[in-house]
Amino acid sequence: MYDPKNPFAKILAGDLPADRVYEDEHVLAFKDIHPAAPVHVLVITKKPYTSFEDFLTRASEQEVAAFWKGVHKTVQLLEVAEQGYRLVTNIGPDGGQEVPHLHVHILGGKLLGPKICVL
Amino acid sequence: MYDPKNPFAKILAGDLPADRVYEDEHVLAFKDIHPAAPVHVLVITKKPYTSFEDFLTRASEQEVAAFWKGVHKTVQLLEVAEQGYRLVTNIGPDGGQEVPHLHVHILGGKLLGPKICVL
Repeated sequence: MYDPKNPFAKILAGDLPADRVYEDEHVLAFKDIHPAAPVHVLVITKKPYTSFEDFLTRASEQEVAAFWKGVHKTVQLLEVAEQGYRLVTNIGPDGGQEVPHLHVHILGGKLLGPKICVL
Repeated sequence: MYDPKNPFAKILAGDLPADRVYEDEHVLAFKDIHPAAPVHVLVITKKPYTSFEDFLTRASEQEVAAFWKGVHKTVQLLEVAEQGYRLVTNIGPDGGQEVPHLHVHILGGKLLGPKICVL
């Protein structure tokens, strides 16, 4: 089911470049190549989950907690916590998910309107 | 810091009505009163966290896992997993957060464009 040739698998394998922001045992965070806001970073799991739905279905409680710890660490490095930010994850066809590897968008760096919600 | 008079605190206290979808020890899920999509449900913590940022800062790993378990349970009840959905949480001024109590939006029920991203 998981496509090992998707772009984020290639980034994890080092076969595609990425502007890395944070990395630990569980997650990798890197800048979106088509930013929708001044701050636009993606946080992905290192393990092959096709989506956040797949992650919630199969991951252990420890993995879920570790993932969000990595997101929080990334938010701290981006220094957007005080001014605010938006977290978005798109799942499946209706969600408009484009890359079939779990990714959570961190958006910030300006007042985000109700319509900044990237795919 | 937490405003005990915010609307979601009132829903939790039973002082404001809500169209409840799911509830357990840790979370309450209810329909958004201004739906931005055919499926538009909010999942909130029962504990008083002002935002998801506050939650990531102060909650235990067990609480983080329990929250997402509740979100997943809600997604299952809404039957949107197969067709897809979007999860959004807005934090602070730049994020456009309107109610100062942690809430994650579940959006679905149709093909969501890149601009369905409610406050």
